[in-house]
Amino acid sequence: MIVVVKSGTALPEINRICEEVSGTWGITPEIVPGKHKVIIGLIGDTANLDPFRIQEISPSIEQVLKIEKTYKRASREYRHGQAGEVVVRTPNELVHFGEHHPVVLIAGPCAVESEAAIVATAKRIKAAGAKFLRGGAYKPRTSPYSFQGHGESALEMLAIARQESGLGIITEVMDTADVSRIAQVADILQVGARNMQNFALLKKVGAQDKPVMLKRGPSATIDEWLMAAEYILAGGNPNVILCERGIRSFDRQYTRNMLDLSAVPVLRSLTHLPITIDPSHGTGKSELVPMMAKGAIAVGADALMIEVHPNPAKALSDGPQSLTPEQFEQLTTELAAIGQTLNRWPKQTAVLV
Amino acid sequence: MIVVVKSGTALPEINRICEEVSGTWGITPEIVPGKHKVIIGLIGDTANLDPFRIQEISPSIEQVLKIEKTYKRASREYRHGQAGEVVVRTPNELVHFGEHHPVVLIAGPCAVESEAAIVATAKRIKAAGAKFLRGGAYKPRTSPYSFQGHGESALEMLAIARQESGLGIITEVMDTADVSRIAQVADILQVGARNMQNFALLKKVGAQDKPVMLKRGPSATIDEWLMAAEYILAGGNPNVILCERGIRSFDRQYTRNMLDLSAVPVLRSLTHLPITIDPSHGTGKSELVPMMAKGAIAVGADALMIEVHPNPAKALSDGPQSLTPEQFEQLTTELAAIGQTLNRWPKQTAVLV
Amino acid sequence: MIVVVKSGTALPEINRICEEVSGTWGITPEIVPGKHKVIIGLIGDTANLDPFRIQEISPSIEQVLKIEKTYKRASREYRHGQAGEVVVRTPNELVHFGEHHPVVLIAGPCAVESEAAIVATAKRIKAAGAKFLRGGAYKPRTSPYSFQGHGESALEMLAIARQESGLGIITEVMDTADVSRIAQVADILQVGARNMQNFALLKKVGAQDKPVMLKRGPSATIDEWLMAAEYILAGGNPNVILCERGIRSFDRQYTRNMLDLSAVPVLRSLTHLPITIDPSHGTGKSELVPMMAKGAIAVGADALMIEVHPNPAKALSDGPQSLTPEQFEQLTTELAAIGQTLNRWPKQTAVLV
Amino acid sequence: MIVVVKSGTALPEINRICEEVSGTWGITPEIVPGKHKVIIGLIGDTANLDPFRIQEISPSIEQVLKIEKTYKRASREYRHGQAGEVVVRTPNELVHFGEHHPVVLIAGPCAVESEAAIVATAKRIKAAGAKFLRGGAYKPRTSPYSFQGHGESALEMLAIARQESGLGIITEVMDTADVSRIAQVADILQVGARNMQNFALLKKVGAQDKPVMLKRGPSATIDEWLMAAEYILAGGNPNVILCERGIRSFDRQYTRNMLDLSAVPVLRSLTHLPITIDPSHGTGKSELVPMMAKGAIAVGADALMIEVHPNPAKALSDGPQSLTPEQFEQLTTELAAIGQTLNRWPKQTAVLV
Repeated sequence: MIVVVKSGTALPEINRICEEVSGTWGITPEIVPGKHKVIIGLIGDTANLDPFRIQEISPSIEQVLKIEKTYKRASREYRHGQAGEVVVRTPNELVHFGEHHPVVLIAGPCAVESEAAIVATAKRIKAAGAKFLRGGAYKPRTSPYSFQGHGESALEMLAIARQESGLGIITEVMDTADVSRIAQVADILQVGARNMQNFALLKKVGAQDKPVMLKRGPSATIDEWLMAAEYILAGGNPNVILCERGIRSFDRQYTRNMLDLSAVPVLRSLTHLPITIDPSHGTGKSELVPMMAKGAIAVGADALMIEVHPNPAKALSDGPQSLTPEQFEQLTTELAAIGQTLNRWPKQTAVLV
Repeated sequence: MIVVVKSGTALPEINRICEEVSGTWGITPEIVPGKHKVIIGLIGDTANLDPFRIQEISPSIEQVLKIEKTYKRASREYRHGQAGEVVVRTPNELVHFGEHHPVVLIAGPCAVESEAAIVATAKRIKAAGAKFLRGGAYKPRTSPYSFQGHGESALEMLAIARQESGLGIITEVMDTADVSRIAQVADILQVGARNMQNFALLKKVGAQDKPVMLKRGPSATIDEWLMAAEYILAGGNPNVILCERGIRSFDRQYTRNMLDLSAVPVLRSLTHLPITIDPSHGTGKSELVPMMAKGAIAVGADALMIEVHPNPAKALSDGPQSLTPEQFEQLTTELAAIGQTLNRWPKQTAVLV
Repeated sequence: MIVVVKSGTALPEINRICEEVSGTWGITPEIVPGKHKVIIGLIGDTANLDPFRIQEISPSIEQVLKIEKTYKRASREYRHGQAGEVVVRTPNELVHFGEHHPVVLIAGPCAVESEAAIVATAKRIKAAGAKFLRGGAYKPRTSPYSFQGHGESALEMLAIARQESGLGIITEVMDTADVSRIAQVADILQVGARNMQNFALLKKVGAQDKPVMLKRGPSATIDEWLMAAEYILAGGNPNVILCERGIRSFDRQYTRNMLDLSAVPVLRSLTHLPITIDPSHGTGKSELVPMMAKGAIAVGADALMIEVHPNPAKALSDGPQSLTPEQFEQLTTELAAIGQTLNRWPKQTAVLV
Repeated sequence: MIVVVKSGTALPEINRICEEVSGTWGITPEIVPGKHKVIIGLIGDTANLDPFRIQEISPSIEQVLKIEKTYKRASREYRHGQAGEVVVRTPNELVHFGEHHPVVLIAGPCAVESEAAIVATAKRIKAAGAKFLRGGAYKPRTSPYSFQGHGESALEMLAIARQESGLGIITEVMDTADVSRIAQVADILQVGARNMQNFALLKKVGAQDKPVMLKRGPSATIDEWLMAAEYILAGGNPNVILCERGIRSFDRQYTRNMLDLSAVPVLRSLTHLPITIDPSHGTGKSELVPMMAKGAIAVGADALMIEVHPNPAKALSDGPQSLTPEQFEQLTTELAAIGQTLNRWPKQTAVLV
């Protein structure tokens, strides 16, 4: 951490700051006199020290600059610069998420609506190459009067679809009280964008052993997102997958959110955690999904989460951003072409499609 | 709701859209042929109908415009255009929040740190005119390694401070599992900005009978905020107070958030709910708090929530945005001058100060 | 245009609104009575009518919704839904920008620094497949104390580089007074992001006949951007190429701007104008450029503008976002793989590289 | 400036960085070894040194932190911490803008429409206490098809209104080619929000001697705004008045822009330049103007710019945000009450109103 002292500050005050720093936190201050300003380097274990605590020592402090990252377990350095991977056990196979593995496809409806529909969808998307079925049992909705998900009965339908298709299941958890129940069915627990800083929930999913898909909050910075991941990792659960799903921008005329594809290469240098892109929520419009899915693979995403509904016009939620199964099949063919060019596509796909 | 049909759409397709709308939702369509485009007015109970459901009926639909508000109980119309008020029972008195009442002052530290400190602070702020003591027992912190609040023991300290000072207590609830315990101590439950769309929590506080202070999420639109309030109101709890605490902007060099004072007059015309301004979180810097507190009163806020800590430099959280008790006393004198000019200040304040 | 009348408005007032609309603008009003609210459809030539003018007719008007696009010449409908193309004459060949043509590569330094350097760079990038040399003679800089470009002498260097390499030249114009001089050298005039709504400049470049590259302002909506293009088109210059170069977001820790790749598919449905992506300004970091350039091709961009400098560490501006010529050559090979997969790459590239 | 070196960097590389820094820019490096990372303090005249130039010296540099402000003449330090003032000569009197002077009122229509109207408006607003008449001759409009201002003939009308009323004139300049002509009529030249970084224009108004009102760009940071002011100051014109007029946010449902009142106290500590608030553009709605004007005075603004039009419904631009003369008169009475409480109101106002 670096303390910038206001120009014109007298030496005794600078010394007092140094003494307070070393007395209170056992940190060694090193004074660097500049032409206009003095800076004080703080040497020691400062990663979790709040810069504001330092700033308040003296009105002569102009700025306190934190140069250490505040996340540790999520940092790339934590794995000595190597990529990580999250391995998820599904009924049929182990699926690997990570930059040295093929792109993982996750697909399915926004909300689980009926057993017949979810089972049929699961089989269709599996045939097209998906490894996971997504589907909401508990739905976060802006309005209390909108459909809130079928809850427990939807969990049962997901369990059946899992068994029938062999796909892994990913579904959202919204309440600490529901975590253990959902973890009995899901292979991956999803923490939604609006709960990214629901710290009680992060602690809870950090204390159980199913992998967690952590969506980025609509106005979360990269650092806040990684700190949210750190909550789960610090809780003892090392299996966190990040998911970018669009952030809030000033222009919401044509897209529901602004999909931040640059997050993928940015995160690569900061963290070892695998990265998923959700172009469905990221744009809010089914006609934009194929282009943005291709873009996601080109920038290096490790997985794609795409909404697929047998009849989007009748979907109980998020219809306009859902592809039909036919559109999804067509898309996977196009994605395969780019994925193969970049060596990020499963070898056996040609057989499956 | 209004459906805009793409130019060049054939009449049979327009008729098909009309039939589907009336068949599926029992809504009467009215065709308005324009020079370039046809629009279809949808007449009936469309307030909770998802525009996306309509949009998906036909690729010939260019846009679906919702002209009804989606919140009802939170709307000003719900009280026939009249201002509402929230009356809170505190040990000594009933405190009224609302535009026909004096500005209510809420003050106290970010987090409860010790019994002695919280009791002393409570007495100081009460003498300066505050009606409520704020103080966190459970703290939402960006980092898992930062101080997370003293939890249950802090609740006990708040109960003592309440008894000793006669002030009402407001404190944050972060987990559905904690609601009933906190409601035993608090006179107002606070839902924090990062939990504004934690719908499980909104439902839970809507199902109990303590008033709720609902902070605006850092990237929440006015409409999303009112919809979050609607969750609580729809749950059966009519006592919701809104609190603006700064939103996220592109410039974070000098303020932690961007305090949106225009929210006050905007909300006035939309809702009957009382409005609080929190200039401490809204700016993140104690030196900006007095000016923005004055601005808040001038734009018509019903209450102010201000962080006060006996020794901000030693605060376990949010020190840099806390006033000292002396600064708070000084500020209340300045606020009184403006408040009296605008007829929004308690008559007896002159005696108290 | 659609007028939404407040609920409870008496019929005489509704009739008065209708009369005023038809009397003042010769527009036919059509009343659609709803369950709660009346709407009035305005039929006629309303595209350039300011909704605010209507709104002010009566306090009983709740909202005026504009359903016509305000840009005409820039709209896709203006070309009957077909893609457009901009053909630029360069010393050696005609270069076509458009969705039915190969991706055009534009490269070069932020600012022209010396004749030797710019000629050498031109030859290197040409060998790697670029069709245009970019280089600033007049530089928009945040600080008046930063290097402002070599001005007229830089134009001479560009003219020499053009002759020596056969590449087309694109350079920025910042002042109406400089347009004609720059147009003597440049094959494409660039209007920079900060001048996107410099309407005097837009009119001036609309009144001359060199093609114009119009960069998106950092906080411009898609509609504002297309309206800025409309200024040039309405001035009589049909050759406008759009360029996305990153917009302003709340997170500027790791990228200078937020590159909005979704703008490409969004613009495809709205406009016939060709679309360029500038990943160099869009991210501000050379290490992110390759990934985002690949993403740009995958989402369908018609051209890429990439900063290349022989020695980025010594660049007089924007060094950190510049590739070296070697990095650019390597990148074009990777881009070719994706471009060929998508049928957007020149056939002869294999020979050139 | 501070250089943070990546952890694990070998000493020879650190020494090489130091040598390059001192060799190239004559700056003295001071090495501060930390527990995990080394930092290098750069001592010397680094205010105008681009941090990126340093960063590119070595891939082992993690970050370069600039601790000096890049604006000098605009900084508060430039006046040794004292407030500045801008004195403007108007036909009748010298008007002082600054924190030790009464709040200055500027009012008038968005655009000058006719001689009779502008003269009548000038007299009305003068009677209510205004010192300046605002009115556009050249209007920046999003659409090329919207009214663009009456240009030169509007300048003549302003000259007449100036003579008839004795008010000072403020009007916008959009093109470097118009500066001298407008400066013949205007007492203050306005640079509009969309031209805040039109550097050619800033240089031009910096090279003439009329005071300049510099509006904040809709997505300009405080620092970028002060750097734009620095362009004018560095050009030799010391008379710059800042004007906040709302910035772009994610919520544009109820306000055209987000008025940033916290900019006033923030700017106070950074600059000596006077600060104006424009609540008309800042909200875009006349019904919000009075509350926000009061708020502006409460947070310490030095001047208010308010749109007033004799018949807002017929205004050729910006009608919905204009007050009628009656509303403006009413507002000045309310503002006087707050202004007097804060000792920022002219003594003689009581007589005038």
